[in-house]
Amino acid sequence: MSPSRKTEVPPPTRRSPCPVACTLDILGDRWTLLVVRDLMLGRTRFKEFSASPEGIPTNILTDRLERLVRHGIAERIPAAEGSKRLAYQLTEKGEALRPVLKAMKEWGLVWEEGTRAALSDG
Amino acid sequence: MSPSRKTEVPPPTRRSPCPVACTLDILGDRWTLLVVRDLMLGRTRFKEFSASPEGIPTNILTDRLERLVRHGIAERIPAAEGSKRLAYQLTEKGEALRPVLKAMKEWGLVWEEGTRAALSDG
Repeated sequence: MSPSRKTEVPPPTRRSPCPVACTLDILGDRWTLLVVRDLMLGRTRFKEFSASPEGIPTNILTDRLERLVRHGIAERIPAAEGSKRLAYQLTEKGEALRPVLKAMKEWGLVWEEGTRAALSDG
Repeated sequence: MSPSRKTEVPPPTRRSPCPVACTLDILGDRWTLLVVRDLMLGRTRFKEFSASPEGIPTNILTDRLERLVRHGIAERIPAAEGSKRLAYQLTEKGEALRPVLKAMKEWGLVWEEGTRAALSDG
């Protein structure tokens, strides 16, 4: 399986042309952006995402990784040279989500007591 | 019912102290941030949110408005002076979500074809 940056076109199930709504069509749930956060933190393997403190259930993790790949936000790469095991990395489209994560992080830090950041630059 | 900026403390159901995870605990679904968007666009009434192009079901809208008030993101105000009907407005905590919406809007505009912005400053 060769890495590809090509985005499969999602089915036209958009609720409106609003870019916020379209973004939420893809990312609007409790888990997807946490996988993106992990990818931004340099995690690449299924078991690393699975070990994050939020304890994402493996069936949800599988689904969300599929979704991220389908929307061109993450891509599959070999876990090591010559390895058949897979890892994941953000595409350019995925890296472009940094300002979204950064804004959420900053809002949480200011407005939700007891939060502390693990994400140094995101 | 007098407007209040006081945030009721949510129950301690956090998945982790990560501010992104905490933000998603509150806002991580397909609809909540669309109501916040509408509030940022100056909409204040249930029927106005209901009329947005995404067609939010009224039971979901009721739930999400309750959630926004419970988390101190929006507050109830009289729809007009002396009126018993209610309207909603963002609190300071809700206004502080503008960078989140802005980042989502900008990402959607760049990466999702066919989107167009209604949100001029958010």
